[in-house]
Amino acid sequence: MQELVKSLAQKTDSKIVLIVLDGLGDLPAEGEGGGKTPLEAARTPNLDRLAKEAALGLMDPIARGITPGSGPGHLGLFGYDPLQYEVGRGVLEALGIGLDLEPEDVAARGNFATVDENGVLTDRRAGRLPTDENKRICAKLQRQIKKIEDVAIQIEPVMDHRFAVIFRGPGLGGAVADTDPQKTGLPPLPVTALAQDRGSRKTARIAERFVFQAMAALKDEVKANAVLLRGFGKLPQIPKMQDLYKLTPAVIAGYPMYRGLARLIGMEILPLELGNESLEEKLRLLRENWGRFDFFFVHIKRTDSAGEDGDFARKAKLIEEFDAHLPKVLELKPDVLAITADHSTPVPLKSHSWHPVPLLLHSRYIWPGGNRDQRFTERDCRSGGLGRFQAIELMPELLAHALKLQKFGA
Amino acid sequence: MQELVKSLAQKTDSKIVLIVLDGLGDLPAEGEGGGKTPLEAARTPNLDRLAKEAALGLMDPIARGITPGSGPGHLGLFGYDPLQYEVGRGVLEALGIGLDLEPEDVAARGNFATVDENGVLTDRRAGRLPTDENKRICAKLQRQIKKIEDVAIQIEPVMDHRFAVIFRGPGLGGAVADTDPQKTGLPPLPVTALAQDRGSRKTARIAERFVFQAMAALKDEVKANAVLLRGFGKLPQIPKMQDLYKLTPAVIAGYPMYRGLARLIGMEILPLELGNESLEEKLRLLRENWGRFDFFFVHIKRTDSAGEDGDFARKAKLIEEFDAHLPKVLELKPDVLAITADHSTPVPLKSHSWHPVPLLLHSRYIWPGGNRDQRFTERDCRSGGLGRFQAIELMPELLAHALKLQKFGA
Repeated sequence: MQELVKSLAQKTDSKIVLIVLDGLGDLPAEGEGGGKTPLEAARTPNLDRLAKEAALGLMDPIARGITPGSGPGHLGLFGYDPLQYEVGRGVLEALGIGLDLEPEDVAARGNFATVDENGVLTDRRAGRLPTDENKRICAKLQRQIKKIEDVAIQIEPVMDHRFAVIFRGPGLGGAVADTDPQKTGLPPLPVTALAQDRGSRKTARIAERFVFQAMAALKDEVKANAVLLRGFGKLPQIPKMQDLYKLTPAVIAGYPMYRGLARLIGMEILPLELGNESLEEKLRLLRENWGRFDFFFVHIKRTDSAGEDGDFARKAKLIEEFDAHLPKVLELKPDVLAITADHSTPVPLKSHSWHPVPLLLHSRYIWPGGNRDQRFTERDCRSGGLGRFQAIELMPELLAHALKLQKFGA
Repeated sequence: MQELVKSLAQKTDSKIVLIVLDGLGDLPAEGEGGGKTPLEAARTPNLDRLAKEAALGLMDPIARGITPGSGPGHLGLFGYDPLQYEVGRGVLEALGIGLDLEPEDVAARGNFATVDENGVLTDRRAGRLPTDENKRICAKLQRQIKKIEDVAIQIEPVMDHRFAVIFRGPGLGGAVADTDPQKTGLPPLPVTALAQDRGSRKTARIAERFVFQAMAALKDEVKANAVLLRGFGKLPQIPKMQDLYKLTPAVIAGYPMYRGLARLIGMEILPLELGNESLEEKLRLLRENWGRFDFFFVHIKRTDSAGEDGDFARKAKLIEEFDAHLPKVLELKPDVLAITADHSTPVPLKSHSWHPVPLLLHSRYIWPGGNRDQRFTERDCRSGGLGRFQAIELMPELLAHALKLQKFGA
């Protein structure tokens, strides 16, 4: 399918905006929800107006019953088979903070953590270390740890308690297990290879020495006196959106991992401070860069966080806030505007879920369906004109509605 | 997909009940149906109540237009691709009556039949021989036929006029044709190999001698003076539900072939007399074994038989009878309850059909859809929140709703 789309894609002037409200899909909630989902409960006059002239549908991020992580959830939206492309979180985070990776590099995510005198974890996030502290500690580590054996070590702060490490040297493998035991009261796990290839064993050995040296360097820190490493991996071989779709794409996202994933598949990261979730800022970037790109991926994180926290009211309020800013997107008159999610994060579950995600698609050429009073809700999306389909089929729909796909066959 | 689900499955305490009303799906009938299907015509207060808080959908057992036999119909429900796994009916029947098969064994189903003095079939079921007569005749055959060449022959009564034969010896193949000509007025067909491998030719030769010896042994019987053999096959290589889904599954079914299929994929057969279709008995078994398993497959045969007989009123009445017993299932508070069919057996067709089957799915985490007044009918299932999908996708849905699938990717 990706080959077919690639063979038909053509460059045009039309513009596509894909807005992902992370974790948007939800379930009806009793109590404060009154049997409604946050999307149903929110007052959304602008979305309501748009929905009446849009096509609605439902998408399964991966397949029925499968709950996606953020990586696979987004890969599908951009037309990449999430089962074919597995990407380590370390790579995404490193790319997301602007680091350049060589094909042989191994990247990992790091957490600063707190251990007691027995080496047992008491806080897996070192009290959610402020980013400035993080920067100071990363600089201190980098001064003391530059190379282990023949492997250069690069340490970069991300946000809060999180950092990225790049291991650069000959013959490293990426199949290495996380050292985070996922709960306190246990010591960090030793670094072990997940596969018995020489490369992964070398990475595990170097990373274990890195952890040891880092703990020595951090022994006088009160909170950040240990490191946990997760999401080891190398840059995957993955085609770029430019090659596949003949697009010139850009990403507007505050969180490193979404920026990293977007960059991995060829998007330019528009300049936004890490962690900045201001809609004003994001839509300002969209407006200011309107002429330079023909595909914009706008990522909005907070809806997911509200779902994870089980906070119905906050999730509804964030949807209302997005609705209030929607006119600024419409003013730009995108040829195709899609609003959807990478997965559902229902308030009753407080976690990602397998439920399909709502989709609103607006263009001059949408296929009608639904009813005259349809709103952008899970329920109305279920009876929408686009039906229910797999997220990996979204890109061909977007490209087609932007008249960016030629006819197949004579 | 099966690999993906396998990699995500986790053991939990939650319990899944899958109730299969065999051949449930139907078409609207004029006349006594008044334009309704049996499900629509039946008075089902308990199902009605359940449907309002459940998600409905339609499933294609195999694919659009394909009418499934009972084997493929059920394989799909349990998440096995019916096109990948072909299982001989002989194997299912043998397993279903509790026989143990070795990997090299060939099993076949047998019918006792009546032939006239010219060897022409006058009754393919020997007047639907009583099971006790069957037992007597099988014992008589087994006394006279123990071994042919180097192949041991095991003959076991099933129900009515049906028996199972197991051929156990070196180098047997399973590709052997049925000997039942499917109508009276013809002689039984000779046993022939369907493939020209040495093993299948050997099985055909042994089976032909078995038929010959059996006819000699039965020559004084009034009704059961011939045998017809069908569904030759060997035990297929098929993964168990325990390995795929980390489930501890059980089957509650009266008919050998459903028990056999369930046993083949790892279910424990709960003790029910062969042919017992009492709902009281089945639900008693469910209750008494509630603590021991986390997946229960409850099979209900009679709805299919009523469809095969073209008996609208009986089918509707059987649905009402099931409805009356439903509260006993609900009392157990299964985390996930699914009610569906393996295929449709519409009254107007008097046979299995290709029509999609209705599905009701109940859990705390169902996604809304449909309308407030929905009932569990083919029509309301068409507009239900689960949409229309292939039966093979049911297991991931059931596991997900029971929170038995981990997140895919980070």
